[in-house]
Amino acid sequence: MVSNDRCLFCRIASGEITAKKVYEDADVVAFEDINPQAPTHVLIVPRKHIPSLDDLTDADAQVVGTVLTRAAQIARNLHLESDGYRLVINNGEAAGQTVFHIHFHILGGRNFGWPPG
Amino acid sequence: MVSNDRCLFCRIASGEITAKKVYEDADVVAFEDINPQAPTHVLIVPRKHIPSLDDLTDADAQVVGTVLTRAAQIARNLHLESDGYRLVINNGEAAGQTVFHIHFHILGGRNFGWPPG
Repeated sequence: MVSNDRCLFCRIASGEITAKKVYEDADVVAFEDINPQAPTHVLIVPRKHIPSLDDLTDADAQVVGTVLTRAAQIARNLHLESDGYRLVINNGEAAGQTVFHIHFHILGGRNFGWPPG
Repeated sequence: MVSNDRCLFCRIASGEITAKKVYEDADVVAFEDINPQAPTHVLIVPRKHIPSLDDLTDADAQVVGTVLTRAAQIARNLHLESDGYRLVINNGEAAGQTVFHIHFHILGGRNFGWPPG
């Protein structure tokens, strides 16, 4: 699995940097956001280092699709599905992406307004 | 491809109902949101009828991963990547899901606040 030793999320995935992990397996790691925006706010990342959506190719479909299916599984584990939840990907600094390793925000436990920011 | 003839997005995908399509191929269809929340606001859906993230299984990883890789490609086609964009999935009525066929919102062309709704 390709990782980047200067990437914060690769270092969390490897265990080199501590985070409050809520789930991990061979493909993905999920941990609590350090600046939560909802009662439940978890980030899920692929172990593979992909900086942003701009770097995605069709060959990555299985990798990022697995992130999404595991995100849904984590939401079920956290009992978010009954009240609904929101998944968000920020792409690029202007949209709020601060770590350049693809990650989905899983937000739940409260109502969400529209537009989404 | 499994579709549902009572589902609005399946009917748009098949062409039975008109929408302002911006992209389509054998796997996905993308079209303008009728109530846009940003200068660019496109919905992208798999042709396969999957009602919500609650219905996803690991076997769907390739399907939903393809939606994500095509969303990124559409964003590049629309030149959204330079100023950033946001992808959002609302899951469940409480989170704002109004059509029960999985869809990603692609929002771009303006700045986005945080939290995302």
